[in-house]
Amino acid sequence: MNRVAVDLPVEDAPSAAARVPDDGRLAVSGFGSVGYPKAVPLALAESTGRTLSLTVVSGGSVGDEIDTALVEAGAIERRFPYQARPAAREAVNARRIAFQDRHIAGLGDEVVSGGLVAPDVAVVEALAVGEDWLIPSTSIGHTPAFVEAADRLIVEVNRAQPLSLRRLHDVYRPGRPPNREPIPLTAPNARIGESRISFPREKLVSVVETDRRDSPYAFRDPSSTDRAIAANLSAFLATEIARNPAFASSVNLQFGVGSLGNALMGELDGVDVGDRTVAYYGEVIQDSLLDLIDDGTLSVASATSLALSAEGQDRLFEDVERYADGIVLRPADVSNSPEVIRRLGVVAVNSALEVDLYGHVNSTHVGGTRVLNGVGGSGDFNRNALVSVTALPSRVRGKGVSRIVPMVPHVDHTEHDVSVVVTERGVADLRGLGPSERADLLVEECAHPDDRPALRAYLDRARGRGGHMPHDLETVFDWA
Amino acid sequence: MNRVAVDLPVEDAPSAAARVPDDGRLAVSGFGSVGYPKAVPLALAESTGRTLSLTVVSGGSVGDEIDTALVEAGAIERRFPYQARPAAREAVNARRIAFQDRHIAGLGDEVVSGGLVAPDVAVVEALAVGEDWLIPSTSIGHTPAFVEAADRLIVEVNRAQPLSLRRLHDVYRPGRPPNREPIPLTAPNARIGESRISFPREKLVSVVETDRRDSPYAFRDPSSTDRAIAANLSAFLATEIARNPAFASSVNLQFGVGSLGNALMGELDGVDVGDRTVAYYGEVIQDSLLDLIDDGTLSVASATSLALSAEGQDRLFEDVERYADGIVLRPADVSNSPEVIRRLGVVAVNSALEVDLYGHVNSTHVGGTRVLNGVGGSGDFNRNALVSVTALPSRVRGKGVSRIVPMVPHVDHTEHDVSVVVTERGVADLRGLGPSERADLLVEECAHPDDRPALRAYLDRARGRGGHMPHDLETVFDWA
Repeated sequence: MNRVAVDLPVEDAPSAAARVPDDGRLAVSGFGSVGYPKAVPLALAESTGRTLSLTVVSGGSVGDEIDTALVEAGAIERRFPYQARPAAREAVNARRIAFQDRHIAGLGDEVVSGGLVAPDVAVVEALAVGEDWLIPSTSIGHTPAFVEAADRLIVEVNRAQPLSLRRLHDVYRPGRPPNREPIPLTAPNARIGESRISFPREKLVSVVETDRRDSPYAFRDPSSTDRAIAANLSAFLATEIARNPAFASSVNLQFGVGSLGNALMGELDGVDVGDRTVAYYGEVIQDSLLDLIDDGTLSVASATSLALSAEGQDRLFEDVERYADGIVLRPADVSNSPEVIRRLGVVAVNSALEVDLYGHVNSTHVGGTRVLNGVGGSGDFNRNALVSVTALPSRVRGKGVSRIVPMVPHVDHTEHDVSVVVTERGVADLRGLGPSERADLLVEECAHPDDRPALRAYLDRARGRGGHMPHDLETVFDWA
Repeated sequence: MNRVAVDLPVEDAPSAAARVPDDGRLAVSGFGSVGYPKAVPLALAESTGRTLSLTVVSGGSVGDEIDTALVEAGAIERRFPYQARPAAREAVNARRIAFQDRHIAGLGDEVVSGGLVAPDVAVVEALAVGEDWLIPSTSIGHTPAFVEAADRLIVEVNRAQPLSLRRLHDVYRPGRPPNREPIPLTAPNARIGESRISFPREKLVSVVETDRRDSPYAFRDPSSTDRAIAANLSAFLATEIARNPAFASSVNLQFGVGSLGNALMGELDGVDVGDRTVAYYGEVIQDSLLDLIDDGTLSVASATSLALSAEGQDRLFEDVERYADGIVLRPADVSNSPEVIRRLGVVAVNSALEVDLYGHVNSTHVGGTRVLNGVGGSGDFNRNALVSVTALPSRVRGKGVSRIVPMVPHVDHTEHDVSVVVTERGVADLRGLGPSERADLLVEECAHPDDRPALRAYLDRARGRGGHMPHDLETVFDWA
């Protein structure tokens, strides 16, 4: 297959970048820090004599060419829905960039309906492009929606991404509301689409050729705390899988993005699941999932991004054929779809910055004010999972600060969306309990022993003031 | 049709009540304060010589026979997922009842999988019952799931509810995860089920006959503030409907439960929708919806409950045939399904207690501690709607207290789930804005003019401390 069909408007990156208006609304491919366009954003960042004030919407996190280079060039004015690079984070927290944190599942609809942003240009990385189609690269993310919504399309064909990756893609495009059909996906391994994204041929204005690798995540090695959390989580999962009639013959699991999620997945092969089929239905493929596919623990892994480390990418790229039956990449509005997550009865495991006594979770804002990355898909899974687990260390590493607090200063997941909390200390199954019962369980099972006396003292004080969910608002952020 | 098939185990209410264990886990019909069982709960409340410690799960709110009589008898130990009577509220806030507030959409799955509670007895009001089927009465709620989950079934056949109501019912039961099919509903007026709920004949242990009316809501007359909110909402809806390509030919609306929602719906006929079809896809039918069906504003109203006032019930009951094509009643796991709400691109309008500067919404806990009713379906609609509107007065009536606050002390709907805020003062369209921009808009457009100086002063103080979402935690609950 030719990477670039004949007669397409191939040009260099600076020429393509010149097509983006100074105040352009850019929709870019990319999710899990892979599959994002590289040459055109870099050319934009390096362009001289222009004053750029771009709006940039991506599927999820992207690499340094966008969230470092363009940010440091002062070219981004507005950014959605997620960012995970220090330069972008710093600019967002200094309020130099107006950032709106969005759930992943609804983003495609929001962009297509013009509710969040109406993009004028989509810049999309592809394995190959024809006159009215393209094949996405290492992530699919919201690229199908962005291509549909944008007036014009610039495609970066990246020869560093193996063409064989198309074997993994299953592009299904949900229709537009209010007259759309159900998403016909009823099993994690099912394929309901094709490898290509189609578009009207007049939309394609530019093709740029590159061979630049993704700059993906680096995962840290699991710590002893990670391993202790994993052991508690494994024990809970084994019990729940044995008890819950929904898991009588199969279990569909999701784990959140990041080093803790990667570490927790790494311990999954130790969970006794009997003869049940175990599948991963999540948003990203991280390195430890490759091991679980290799050793047969997982029957299939379905996601929207190959969010692998550079080593993980090498491992996959060298042997795509072997993984082609075990990995499916879908658009983010399918991978994160509340419809599908509920249908499949997913067990979701996501991390957090802190949890409060009544089960509300902060996963985005340090101190309630400084955003880290964004809510990402954690809300899609926590809300819609049949069982949602929040896994986190009881304390901030090396700081002696409790992650179990009286009230989180920013709520991403409400008390209604959190079934179970797991720390390295233990497990609190919050289901069916009133707030006061939940608080006791979280303090006694999940908090660090050295933090328990202060938490108990707060609870005593709060309970003296009465109410279903007792608080002492005067000291709630100054409780220790 | 016979109300009660021959050879069924008919008995009086005290005999049926004696079948409920002292520590029984009861799943009861009822939603929107109608369609709940009346005789058996009253008999339980009046039983002598028993010490009851019941767990009671309902679909939504129920009447005084349960949430007053049983509560005052001290018979309820644990209550899910919603309550709306003063006696229950008081007991919950005094922590005499352990109450867990739950979203409506997932409740059926939670009960069937035993995650929240595994009911031993379902007590269900019906229009009629056969040996392996029943027809629900004025609400469907989670009755299909409860009948499936419970070991035993007690049916109250209520002759005060007209048999003709069965014309409204469309009972579709989603399968059990993880191997279930899409919910095949693609339009608000579609019918995908039948009027009956089926069960294994051995489950039915008792039939009780009653003729006691529901004790439903009373709606207050719209205030001048309600009308001003409605005028601002109407202006926003007209603009959005004209702009949004999703609403090119039809609009599906939802309005929340209560007097404000009822008042807002009452003004809907004034919105210019061109020649678009307008349907209601929500969880309850309130009185003003009958007017909108009568005058042709709505093509259909789909919900899970006839949450009408007593007068509204009379009006409907006298003329069920006339409304039979315009009203569909569904199980709550269809009416509130994230799958269907997203598919249909619903515009959701829900009220709240207060909204904070960054768009987080408290709809349940006064002062962060005293629960009012519960989150109900507001989360199902706010999260999954294509456009979600929070409508509320700028101040607490008669108290001069702002409902726009620096930080809500309880979050039910996060910043990610709220598109637009409407008060009697104006409209804040928060889409695509960073937190700091959202705060300015809410203060200047939605807050009461007399509250703006103090809110601006708080914002100045908070911004001095920096961050993406600035706060001054020392004064955040003591800001004025």
